[in-house]
Amino acid sequence: METIALQAITPGGPLQTAVIRRRPLRDDDVDIRITFCGVCHSDLHALHAGAGGTYPLVPGHEFIGEVAAVGPAVTRFAPGDTVAVGNIVDSCGACRMCRAGQENFCEEFPTLTYGGQDRVDGTTTAGAYAGRYVARENFVYALPDGLDPAGAAPLMCAGVTVWEPLRAAGVGPGTRLGVVGLGGLGHLAVRLGRALGAEVTVFTTTPAKAADARALGAGKVIVSTDARAMQESRGTLDVVLDTVAVEHDLAPYLRALDLDGILYSLGYLGSFTLATTDLLIGRKRLASAGSGGHRRTRELLDFCARHGIVADVETLPWKEADLALERLARNDVRYRFVLDLRGIDEGLERK
Amino acid sequence: METIALQAITPGGPLQTAVIRRRPLRDDDVDIRITFCGVCHSDLHALHAGAGGTYPLVPGHEFIGEVAAVGPAVTRFAPGDTVAVGNIVDSCGACRMCRAGQENFCEEFPTLTYGGQDRVDGTTTAGAYAGRYVARENFVYALPDGLDPAGAAPLMCAGVTVWEPLRAAGVGPGTRLGVVGLGGLGHLAVRLGRALGAEVTVFTTTPAKAADARALGAGKVIVSTDARAMQESRGTLDVVLDTVAVEHDLAPYLRALDLDGILYSLGYLGSFTLATTDLLIGRKRLASAGSGGHRRTRELLDFCARHGIVADVETLPWKEADLALERLARNDVRYRFVLDLRGIDEGLERK
Repeated sequence: METIALQAITPGGPLQTAVIRRRPLRDDDVDIRITFCGVCHSDLHALHAGAGGTYPLVPGHEFIGEVAAVGPAVTRFAPGDTVAVGNIVDSCGACRMCRAGQENFCEEFPTLTYGGQDRVDGTTTAGAYAGRYVARENFVYALPDGLDPAGAAPLMCAGVTVWEPLRAAGVGPGTRLGVVGLGGLGHLAVRLGRALGAEVTVFTTTPAKAADARALGAGKVIVSTDARAMQESRGTLDVVLDTVAVEHDLAPYLRALDLDGILYSLGYLGSFTLATTDLLIGRKRLASAGSGGHRRTRELLDFCARHGIVADVETLPWKEADLALERLARNDVRYRFVLDLRGIDEGLERK
Repeated sequence: METIALQAITPGGPLQTAVIRRRPLRDDDVDIRITFCGVCHSDLHALHAGAGGTYPLVPGHEFIGEVAAVGPAVTRFAPGDTVAVGNIVDSCGACRMCRAGQENFCEEFPTLTYGGQDRVDGTTTAGAYAGRYVARENFVYALPDGLDPAGAAPLMCAGVTVWEPLRAAGVGPGTRLGVVGLGGLGHLAVRLGRALGAEVTVFTTTPAKAADARALGAGKVIVSTDARAMQESRGTLDVVLDTVAVEHDLAPYLRALDLDGILYSLGYLGSFTLATTDLLIGRKRLASAGSGGHRRTRELLDFCARHGIVADVETLPWKEADLALERLARNDVRYRFVLDLRGIDEGLERK
């Protein structure tokens, strides 16, 4: 079927409305009328770096919607259900990682929600800055009752990206957790870490965010330009989630770890250089992670429903998508933009 | 008292015999007549890089000896006891790391066996390529009965350097352990890993070492230049100990790890560059470690005594120390040189 999408024709170009086609429903497909889609840092990267990007490009990979129709083999969803989709819409289903519920690490590479390659027909996937999306049932999640749909959209990428390392590191009551950077990922890491029982310390370059950090659940806020406070932070943490999206020195945050502590670098995905001794002294561990598989995504949604956790979002009408991206690029967001895509297909329906 | 030591006067210079003075015994000091001292890669670094080195330099920091005398407050040792000393001879004893039995990570920096600064009088420590050594009781270990003293010397540095990560990573029955490089550290990692119950895979650039690796306990040997074997190794290991002493790409060994696997970089202590995605995919962890604290050193000696484990050594008379260093520099060693220092003080005693 046809839907209206916001697409970039060239790298760095503005988003333009365009009519795109979604595939006819396969047996296990779910046709989703999109209501809210988060604006992720990856969207900015994809739009501006152009690296590996196939244009035209429709961004958007953390969204909520309402089921419009289902294929004949779909058993878990019916029209009218509220559902959520993240940044993966397919995987091989057979490899070691898929069998472990970590489809995000599928050895054949998972099919990304946009800019990916459909495993059946080989076409390039177009994202959820659009009116409709069609996805395999297996990658569609029921949104638990009681979660605000706009606030829940960012759980599907930002949320699960911090949730997987929180769980892999066994964060729980008493864990001394550090969160570096208070943005889309960071503010959810604070909220989720606190709900798991951790004592949370936030590192930020922005003193003005201290009050927010405390309101989100941080017991302590360190302004990372304060040399004395950084010095005092040495050896005080068990786990650090570093959510900063630009290249930066990891060493000060490794030093904040206690013996056998672990730092997950989640925001910056380029290459980095480090002195081995920054790992050696105190036997520190450095890791990374990104998005999530079925098992942890379902667990996160259940956990959020139980604890009433969603992202702090600023919802903008879809017509302001470029403004959202521009403000995100200059960090003018607390803490995630979400596009309200309701009505984007109205023009289409009038035809 | 006086002893004869092998010392370098300048960086890169040959070792020359010289009479040096050891301090008069303090209350908790043990005076040790050295019998065997391992030749560690660090000795080469210290002698050739000159970095941070104070000359003249006497190397040697993994040794066995016989107690010659003890200070009045020493309770655990008596003259005639066979003892072992590693690369640390003092620490603050009060910091978090010391209290955790990890004196090797002492926050005031541990006193190294050579090239360190004595905490009492500020003098520079001289190592164990010598006839005698004086150390605090607290950093002297009883050598368990039944362990060959020459073979046991390398346990005190090479051994504990691989033992701490093996234990920190919880290596045990069924763990799929990879060991990169079959040298001083590597061959002990294979032997200790196997004794812990792990299934050991050795990565080596030297096909001729395959038989040795199997004899040491490896179930599998991969020649790291074999692209196909490396490809097949992907995702097959839980823990990797990388013992290669020169700069090299860690990525192929990270790829050999399964989900949540961990790689300890133990041999090369410089800086390194890595793509975040090599950690991200499969949520791999990278760590380092070096030497050991009291708790793990004692545990290692007990474990080795129980399992009859020592290093494979080639023992050379102390007069051939330069030859040992030269052969070590070109990797002509299976798998650790040990200097026999008995009799080095004879000239002195004749005076």
